[in-house]
Amino acid sequence: MSKKIRVGAIGCGYWGPNLIRNFIEIPNAEMVAVADLDQKLLDRLESRFPQIQNTTTNYRDLFEMDLDAVIIATPPQTHFVLAKDCMENGLHVLVEKPLTLDSNEAKGLVDIAAKHDRILMVGHVFEYNTAVLALKDLIKSGELGDIYYIDFIRASLGLFQTKANVLWDLAPHDISILRFLLDADPITISSTGLSCVNNGIEDVAYTTFTFPNRVLAHIRSSWLDPNKNRSVTIVGSKKMVVYDDLEPLEKIKIYDKGVEVIRRTDTFGDWSFAYHYGDMIAPYYRFEEPLREECKHFLECIESGEQPRSDGLNGLRVVQILEAADYSLKNKGLTVSMDFETSEITSAH
Amino acid sequence: MSKKIRVGAIGCGYWGPNLIRNFIEIPNAEMVAVADLDQKLLDRLESRFPQIQNTTTNYRDLFEMDLDAVIIATPPQTHFVLAKDCMENGLHVLVEKPLTLDSNEAKGLVDIAAKHDRILMVGHVFEYNTAVLALKDLIKSGELGDIYYIDFIRASLGLFQTKANVLWDLAPHDISILRFLLDADPITISSTGLSCVNNGIEDVAYTTFTFPNRVLAHIRSSWLDPNKNRSVTIVGSKKMVVYDDLEPLEKIKIYDKGVEVIRRTDTFGDWSFAYHYGDMIAPYYRFEEPLREECKHFLECIESGEQPRSDGLNGLRVVQILEAADYSLKNKGLTVSMDFETSEITSAH
Amino acid sequence: MSKKIRVGAIGCGYWGPNLIRNFIEIPNAEMVAVADLDQKLLDRLESRFPQIQNTTTNYRDLFEMDLDAVIIATPPQTHFVLAKDCMENGLHVLVEKPLTLDSNEAKGLVDIAAKHDRILMVGHVFEYNTAVLALKDLIKSGELGDIYYIDFIRASLGLFQTKANVLWDLAPHDISILRFLLDADPITISSTGLSCVNNGIEDVAYTTFTFPNRVLAHIRSSWLDPNKNRSVTIVGSKKMVVYDDLEPLEKIKIYDKGVEVIRRTDTFGDWSFAYHYGDMIAPYYRFEEPLREECKHFLECIESGEQPRSDGLNGLRVVQILEAADYSLKNKGLTVSMDFETSEITSAH
Amino acid sequence: MSKKIRVGAIGCGYWGPNLIRNFIEIPNAEMVAVADLDQKLLDRLESRFPQIQNTTTNYRDLFEMDLDAVIIATPPQTHFVLAKDCMENGLHVLVEKPLTLDSNEAKGLVDIAAKHDRILMVGHVFEYNTAVLALKDLIKSGELGDIYYIDFIRASLGLFQTKANVLWDLAPHDISILRFLLDADPITISSTGLSCVNNGIEDVAYTTFTFPNRVLAHIRSSWLDPNKNRSVTIVGSKKMVVYDDLEPLEKIKIYDKGVEVIRRTDTFGDWSFAYHYGDMIAPYYRFEEPLREECKHFLECIESGEQPRSDGLNGLRVVQILEAADYSLKNKGLTVSMDFETSEITSAH
Repeated sequence: MSKKIRVGAIGCGYWGPNLIRNFIEIPNAEMVAVADLDQKLLDRLESRFPQIQNTTTNYRDLFEMDLDAVIIATPPQTHFVLAKDCMENGLHVLVEKPLTLDSNEAKGLVDIAAKHDRILMVGHVFEYNTAVLALKDLIKSGELGDIYYIDFIRASLGLFQTKANVLWDLAPHDISILRFLLDADPITISSTGLSCVNNGIEDVAYTTFTFPNRVLAHIRSSWLDPNKNRSVTIVGSKKMVVYDDLEPLEKIKIYDKGVEVIRRTDTFGDWSFAYHYGDMIAPYYRFEEPLREECKHFLECIESGEQPRSDGLNGLRVVQILEAADYSLKNKGLTVSMDFETSEITSAH
Repeated sequence: MSKKIRVGAIGCGYWGPNLIRNFIEIPNAEMVAVADLDQKLLDRLESRFPQIQNTTTNYRDLFEMDLDAVIIATPPQTHFVLAKDCMENGLHVLVEKPLTLDSNEAKGLVDIAAKHDRILMVGHVFEYNTAVLALKDLIKSGELGDIYYIDFIRASLGLFQTKANVLWDLAPHDISILRFLLDADPITISSTGLSCVNNGIEDVAYTTFTFPNRVLAHIRSSWLDPNKNRSVTIVGSKKMVVYDDLEPLEKIKIYDKGVEVIRRTDTFGDWSFAYHYGDMIAPYYRFEEPLREECKHFLECIESGEQPRSDGLNGLRVVQILEAADYSLKNKGLTVSMDFETSEITSAH
Repeated sequence: MSKKIRVGAIGCGYWGPNLIRNFIEIPNAEMVAVADLDQKLLDRLESRFPQIQNTTTNYRDLFEMDLDAVIIATPPQTHFVLAKDCMENGLHVLVEKPLTLDSNEAKGLVDIAAKHDRILMVGHVFEYNTAVLALKDLIKSGELGDIYYIDFIRASLGLFQTKANVLWDLAPHDISILRFLLDADPITISSTGLSCVNNGIEDVAYTTFTFPNRVLAHIRSSWLDPNKNRSVTIVGSKKMVVYDDLEPLEKIKIYDKGVEVIRRTDTFGDWSFAYHYGDMIAPYYRFEEPLREECKHFLECIESGEQPRSDGLNGLRVVQILEAADYSLKNKGLTVSMDFETSEITSAH
Repeated sequence: MSKKIRVGAIGCGYWGPNLIRNFIEIPNAEMVAVADLDQKLLDRLESRFPQIQNTTTNYRDLFEMDLDAVIIATPPQTHFVLAKDCMENGLHVLVEKPLTLDSNEAKGLVDIAAKHDRILMVGHVFEYNTAVLALKDLIKSGELGDIYYIDFIRASLGLFQTKANVLWDLAPHDISILRFLLDADPITISSTGLSCVNNGIEDVAYTTFTFPNRVLAHIRSSWLDPNKNRSVTIVGSKKMVVYDDLEPLEKIKIYDKGVEVIRRTDTFGDWSFAYHYGDMIAPYYRFEEPLREECKHFLECIESGEQPRSDGLNGLRVVQILEAADYSLKNKGLTVSMDFETSEITSAH
C-alpha cells in the first residue's frame, strides 16, 4: 500500500467528531490535526481520541503540517472562507452539507476547486447509504415501473439552529437523495412553512417539487414533531417502496401493489379500476456505516483523481435548490422555477 | 316517547348501507324505504335488512310514504338535485359529504333549507367522533398552549373514483375537522398534486392552509400509498398531540414536549433553546360509533328544530374550501384566498 | 342446486349470533329457528335478524321443525346434553369449542355420532383460517426445514368466564392449530398458571408440549395482559415464520434466517456458528372470513357425508389435551403424558 | 478529589471493551492495563483506546501495577480462578454475569471476598438501569397494587455460545431483575427447553418461578427467534406495566386497567366481573447509560467500603437459581425447590 493520506479537520462540535473517528479508523488515512475556535472542544476531543497529535485554535496552522486533505465541519456560514483557503493552500476538501448558504459562494468554491485541481466533496452522506443505493437500483432496473411521486418525512423534536432554518438544516439530505434517485434537477419548487419557536427562523416547512416526466416530490421538514420520523415513500406504476431509516433491520419494504385504469370498450368513455395486491418483501442488505463509506470515497477520489459522487457541482445544485425553496418559503409558497446556470429564481406563474 | 321519526334513504351503494343500518338500530327512528337506481343493490339490501318494508328505483316514490326525513348517499354530483327535491317536498335531509361539487349548488341548498324550514345536515362524520371532540377540548382548555400547526395524513391504496379527485373524496374529512378544531376558516389555500393512474383525476394532493393567528395546516391526501395512514398531529406551544385513527385503543397521545427560546441578556441578540421533555399520556375515552352519533344528532335536530353541528352552512364552507383547493391544484399550487360570501377565489399574490 | 339445508341454532349469547349471521348469508342454508333460555336475547336477535322465523326458549321445539342440522353455541358444560339430544333426534351438529369440558362426554358424543351416522363437527375456527392453512403449507412443503419449536401468545384483558379457566377458554384454538400444523398429538404436557382475579379459576397459564421429532410447543394464555397479542412463531431449521393475527394485512412474515453449527475438522471437537440472514417476505393471501369457511365446510360435509376437518375425534383430542394440561396446572406444572385411547393421564417422571 | 482509582481489565473480547470505555471516561478512575490471552484483541484495543498504557497476555502481570481494582470480562468458566486470584492479590473485583457456572465456586468467591475484605461485584447491569429502578418504585409505592405475575421475553437471533446454554447466557439478566423487583428468592422453579442448533446446548428455554405471596414469574429465553424482543410485563391488582427495552423513548408504559370480581349477594354464590379502563401513561425518565451507572457504583463502593447492590451474594443467588433452572431443564421441566444455604435442589413434588 502507498503511504497514508494525511488528513486534518476544522470543527469538532456536534458532527466533526464522527468524521474524525472514521478517519482515525480507516487504515490508509492518518488523522493528523484538528482545529477549532473553542479550546474546550479540543480538550474534550483529545481526551476521547488521544491518537490525534495536534490541535489548534487557528486553522491556518494546518497548512504547515504537510497535509493532503482537510474535512470541514463548522457552521455553514463559514464554509466558503474555510474551503476556499484550504483549497488555495493545496488541500483537498470534504465539507459538511450544505456546501454553503449562498449559491454564489458555492459556485466560487466549484471554480476554485477546478482552478487548483483539488477534490471538493460535500458530505451528502445519504448518497453513500446502502438503502439509498438500493432504492436507486430499484428505480433504474425498472422494477418499480414509471415513478409517479416520492414523499419524504424528516421530522422530530430537533436540534434548533440559530442561523439556518429547518430547510437548510434537514432538507439537504432529502434534496441530495432526490437528485441522486432521479438523476435530474427539479423544474419548479414551492415551499410553505412557519417559524413557531424562534421568530424568523422557520422550524416547519412543506416543500413540493416537480421533476421531468411529471414526477412529483414532497418533503416534510420539521424540528417540531412529537415523534421521530425518517421515511421515504416511492410510488411507481408497478410497485411501491417505503424506506424507513428508523427500522433497525427491515429498512426497505417493497410492495407489489398498484392500480390500473381499465378502459371499457363497450361504454362511452367509461372506465373502471383494476387493483393489484401482491407480496411485500423486505430484502436483506448488508449495511456499512454510510459515513464510513463517504470517508472512504473521499480518500479514493484523492488517490484516483476522479470526481466524487457528491462533488462540488452536486453541492452547488443542492444549494441552488435550497435557495429557491427558501425564496418560496419567504414568499408564502410562491411556485418558482430556476435557471441552474445563473442561479436566477423566477416565479413559475 | 313520541312517535318514531320515519326515515327514507336514497342510495345504497358503498356507504348508504352503513347509514341504513344505524337508522334501523336507533329506537326512535323507523327505516321505512330505500331508493336506488340499481335494482341489484336493492335486492342485496333487502336480503341483508329484511326490516325494510319498501324499495324502489324511483326516489320520488319516497314522497308518497309520509316520511319525515331522508338520507342521501349517492354520488356527489347528484346531491343538489336530490336534496333540493326532497326539501321542497317537505323532508329533512342528511346528505353525505361533500355536500355538492359546486359551491353555488351548496348555497342553493342552504337557501332552500331556510326557505322551507327544513333541517339540512351534511355527513361530516368526524365532527361526531369522540377523538375529534377530545382534540377540541384539548385546544379549547389551553392545555396545548397556542396552536402552531396541524398536520393531517390520509393515505392508502384507496378506492379510486371516476368523477371526483382525491381532494373531493378524502379532504372533506380533514377540512371539516380543521374548521371544527379551530373555529375558523382558512385565509389562504395552496394545493399541489398529480394524477398518476387516471388522467385528469388527481389521486395525490398536498394542501397547505393558513388560518388566523398564523396557524398553519397541511393535508396529505393520497389514494396511492402502500400503507394505510390516518393521522392528525397538533403542535402547540405547550404540548403536542397525535391522533392515530388506526390505533385500536390508544388513538390519542398527548406529549408533554416542547422548545422555548431563551433570550440571553448578556449577549448581543444571541439566544439559546430550552427543550422540555415530559410524560406521554394516552387518555382513556369511551368510544361510540361516530356514525351512530351523527345519526342520533340528525334525529335530535329534527325533534328540537336546532341547527345541526354540521349544518348546510358548514357543508357550504367545506365545499368552498375544496373548490379553492381544487383551483389551486389545477393552477400548479397557486396560493389563493377566497371571499366566503361570494365564493370568489383570488390569487393571494 | 338441491334444496336448502335447514339449520337451527341453540344459544344466541356472545358467539351464537356470528354463526347465525353466516348461515343467514350462505345461499344454500336456511336459518330456520333459534333457541335460547333467555327471552331477552331472543328478542334482541329477532330485531337484528328479522329473517329468522322462529324462536323458542325450549330447544326441543327445534325437533319439530324438520331441520337438517343444529349449531350449538351455549356454555361448554351444556354441550354434551344438547349435542347428544340433537344427534339422537336425527340432526347433524356443529358445536362450539371446546367440544365438552370432560373427555368422557366428548367420547360419548363421538360414539353417538357414529351410531346415528350424524355429522359431528367442532368450531375449531382457526383450522379454516387462510393464515393457518398457509402455515401448514409452509411446513408441509419443507420450506421451513425441520420444525424446531412453535410459540403461541394469546393474551389481552379478556372476557373472564366463571366456569372455565383461561386454558379451556383460549387454548383450544392454539391446541387445534398445533395438532393441525404438526399432524400429531403431544407426548408430554406441562402447565403452570395462577388465578389472580377469581379464586380457583386460573386466568394466566403457561403450557409446554413436546411432540414427536423433538418438536417443542409453548402456549402463553392470559386474560390479564394490558396489550392484546395473538401471535404464532414457528422456528424451523431453514426459515422462521411469524403469524400475527392482529396485523390488518401482513399477517404472515417469513424470515429467511438461521444458524448452523460448523464443525471444525482441524480442532478437537470445537465448532463455530454460521449465521444466515436473508429477505423477509410477507406473502399476499386472499382472506375469507374463517367462520364463513367453517360454516360452509359444515354444510359441505352434510351434503357429501364426509368427515369434517374438525370432527368429533379432533374435538375429543383437544379436550383430552386440555384435561391433561388442566391436571398439570392443578398439580404445579407436573409434566404428564397421556394415553389417548383411555384418557388416562400419567406423570411423565 | 482524592487520587484516581487504578483499574485493570481481564478480557477484551465482546463485552470487555464496553467496560473499558466506561472506566476510561469516568474522571475518578484510571484505566491502567488490560490483559487478554489473544494478542490480536489487545492490538485492536490499543488502536481504539490509545489511552491504555499497558497490555499483556498474562493477567498476573496486573498484580505488579499497583492497581486498586480489576474488571473481569472473560468466559464464565474462567471467572472463579481469575476472581479468586485477583482478590487474593488484594484487588477489588467486578466480574461479568453470571458470577460463575457453579454455585460452589460462587460461594467460594463470596467467602474469599469476605476474608480478604475486598469488594466483589457482579455485572448485573439491569439493576443499574433507570427503567428497572422505575419499575421497582412503581411496585414499592403500591401504585400497581398486589403483584400478580411478571412475564419476561428475551429473544432474538442471538449470539450462540459453545459452553453455556441460553439460560446461563440470557436469564441472569431477568433473574437479577426479578430478585431486585420482588426483594425475594423464588420458591420453586421449572424450566423446559430444547437444543435446536447445537446438540446438548439448549438455545430455547421457558422457565417458570413461584415467589412468596403467590407471585408467578415466567421467562422466555431464546437465541432462535426472527424478531428481537426485550420486554417485561408486570400485572398488578391495580395497574399493569410494560417495559419494552427496544423502545427508543417510551420504554415504560403504565396501564390503568384491571378486573375485579363482584360477588352478588342476591344469588347463590354467583359473581360477575367489573372491568376498569383508564389512561395509559409513559412517564418521562432521564436515562443514563446503565453500564456507566454500574461502573460508577463499583467505584463508589470501593471508596466507601459499602456492599454493592449486585454484590457477591446476589451473584451467588442468581447462580443457584440458574443451577436449579438448568437442573429442571435437563429433567424435562421437573419442578424443583432449593435450599439457598446448601445449594441443594429438591423435586418440589
